[in-house]
Amino acid sequence: MGKGITYPLGFYASGINCGIKENNKEDLSLIYSVSSSIASGTFTTNQFKSYSVLWSIKNIKNEIRAILINSGNANACNGKKNWDLTKKLIEELSIKLKTDKNSILFASTGIIGVDLPYEKIRSGFDRLIENLSPENNLLAVKGIMTTDTFPKEYEINTGIKGIKKEVFIGGMAKGSGMINPNMATMLCFITTDAVIDKKALDIALKEAVEESFNMITVDNDTSTNDTVICLANGLARNKTIHIGTPEFEIFSNSLKILCRELAKKIAFDGEGASKFIEVVVNGGWCKKDVKRVAKKVAGSYLVKTAIAGGDPNWGRIVAVVGSTNAKIDKKRMELKICGIKVFEGEPLNYNKENLINLMKDKEIKIEIDLKRGNFYATSWGCDLTEEYVKINKEYS
Amino acid sequence: MGKGITYPLGFYASGINCGIKENNKEDLSLIYSVSSSIASGTFTTNQFKSYSVLWSIKNIKNEIRAILINSGNANACNGKKNWDLTKKLIEELSIKLKTDKNSILFASTGIIGVDLPYEKIRSGFDRLIENLSPENNLLAVKGIMTTDTFPKEYEINTGIKGIKKEVFIGGMAKGSGMINPNMATMLCFITTDAVIDKKALDIALKEAVEESFNMITVDNDTSTNDTVICLANGLARNKTIHIGTPEFEIFSNSLKILCRELAKKIAFDGEGASKFIEVVVNGGWCKKDVKRVAKKVAGSYLVKTAIAGGDPNWGRIVAVVGSTNAKIDKKRMELKICGIKVFEGEPLNYNKENLINLMKDKEIKIEIDLKRGNFYATSWGCDLTEEYVKINKEYS
Repeated sequence: MGKGITYPLGFYASGINCGIKENNKEDLSLIYSVSSSIASGTFTTNQFKSYSVLWSIKNIKNEIRAILINSGNANACNGKKNWDLTKKLIEELSIKLKTDKNSILFASTGIIGVDLPYEKIRSGFDRLIENLSPENNLLAVKGIMTTDTFPKEYEINTGIKGIKKEVFIGGMAKGSGMINPNMATMLCFITTDAVIDKKALDIALKEAVEESFNMITVDNDTSTNDTVICLANGLARNKTIHIGTPEFEIFSNSLKILCRELAKKIAFDGEGASKFIEVVVNGGWCKKDVKRVAKKVAGSYLVKTAIAGGDPNWGRIVAVVGSTNAKIDKKRMELKICGIKVFEGEPLNYNKENLINLMKDKEIKIEIDLKRGNFYATSWGCDLTEEYVKINKEYS
Repeated sequence: MGKGITYPLGFYASGINCGIKENNKEDLSLIYSVSSSIASGTFTTNQFKSYSVLWSIKNIKNEIRAILINSGNANACNGKKNWDLTKKLIEELSIKLKTDKNSILFASTGIIGVDLPYEKIRSGFDRLIENLSPENNLLAVKGIMTTDTFPKEYEINTGIKGIKKEVFIGGMAKGSGMINPNMATMLCFITTDAVIDKKALDIALKEAVEESFNMITVDNDTSTNDTVICLANGLARNKTIHIGTPEFEIFSNSLKILCRELAKKIAFDGEGASKFIEVVVNGGWCKKDVKRVAKKVAGSYLVKTAIAGGDPNWGRIVAVVGSTNAKIDKKRMELKICGIKVFEGEPLNYNKENLINLMKDKEIKIEIDLKRGNFYATSWGCDLTEEYVKINKEYS
């Protein structure tokens, strides 16, 4: 078992059931840093933002000590009085944590339009704080899950020297129904003991999110609650990381790997998914083209259902590529499925039986070469099964 | 039973099985006008256009006598030799019909990337032509169906006086999996005996398509084969319809009604659908805003699954509205489901049991008022069921 968000020095975690979810499942989590952290975050662009998101946006610039997260209730579209409840709740927690209320961030996921379960959450605070430990990362990640079937954690050694050990980064995330977050919430919390300036952390996080979580989404749909937060508490006591230094490149690269691995876990765990899909697009005229094509193929419902059925219906993939306005050399465009080339401007003769066998794998790779340039991008998704529909019919 | 495309004077139709589909189901249709028609069309913007579409685009400017349509094979992404087969096939038909090859249009729907079944289609021509009759509209519409569960026809009296009767318009269409034509083909063929100038027909068709078929699609995804064609043979011998005349308004309005009714039938018959969804958006700042919101709500997978489950999970609808960048008065925005107001800037108290009962209906109406202006739009869709996934897993 990994250590996730408690891998870097000085981070504690906790997760309990406060009564929002049934069956005593964890529904309330806390991430706590023993010393002040700088924080960086990216938040949903939805016009109806959760009050939890609004609270975090307001306070992300401050020195941060803790992040409170509840699952089972989105704290969104539930009326103005829940903004007051949000403020009151965080204030109560800050008293118990003996810290400033503006040093606590808040994230929520769950049903929209229902009052924040203020009493339940509040009455869980004592147990939540008691429970804080560097060992309780798994309880914390369980507390943020909704329809996820497994907890998603990752940790990485950067190789950057600190005063005693290397600089570490850890993270945990929750998934986003069918990897088409047409309103399903994606949450990710990252911790590091790096000493890094705020601007460097902002840029590193923005780039990492762009290449990872943003490559598992289709459209620009974002839920009312999407949140990625990174805390850096500086306890590794490394030389401060600034933009333009080799250490920044190393840190930034480690953060990208961590975000990509968490994003892949989310894709792997799409609601009802039976297969993981990786779409690699090469030969693009520009970055925008390759990203758009990769995401559109990974998000196509006809591609997703074909893959669920193990059906080498490659025509659907070519048609999705053609439906974008990306520059394509139509006479030379190549498509490979599971390593087998099936199209190169025209259909190719290939061993269909062999491909059907390869498509029984849990991991399906689609490779597209647009033959127009040197840009490339990768996107991740999952297949679409009857189970997805079942989960979402019965959600509320 | 309606008369569909054979309702206007001088149009004959035919539909046979030529061996592409199993079980002797109709898979080849012909629409024939006893005299030359002007033609207007809108075609897919996909970069990998079917050779059938390319043929029709090339010839739509000509005087048209017939439209050939096959189902079961898309004639797309299947290699250059199929372009030659397409030309040869139409030439053979033109000889049998004793008309110019450039006066025949062609449309196809079915699997992508497979050779045009040239021999099967060619050998069906004699029977297809023998079978032509003003009574065989139903066979013709059956011949264009793929996963459609019922044939879609409509006809309308315009009220515009012809030499003996009124000017008539008729139409037939085939659906587009799940009303998210993420690559599923939409075909529509319209006939009229109106005398109308080409420019007037072009504009009337473009506007009608915009308010109908374009309001049942999500995204700008279009299949390799989407086609809407309207033929006008002038046999009603009315006074020529020009833009700017009252007759143009009447004709244009009738065409809009016809297209809207066909579009609604397509939405109603989405793959695996159990319910029809109508989304009406009012109070928009501009036309673009209301159209975008209406289409996004009707196309949201979480809204579609909630409706399949009869679940009044209105928060998902509000969140979809917020995910667009349409101008919204967030404090006053209204949402009604099945006539019951559930949200007005905040959640409202409503009779949930009552709403759950109303949501058992086959037709679900969602009304949104953005409270920012006077623009409005309507979009149509259907729910998303396990059956949709099943159909598309097993397609090829």
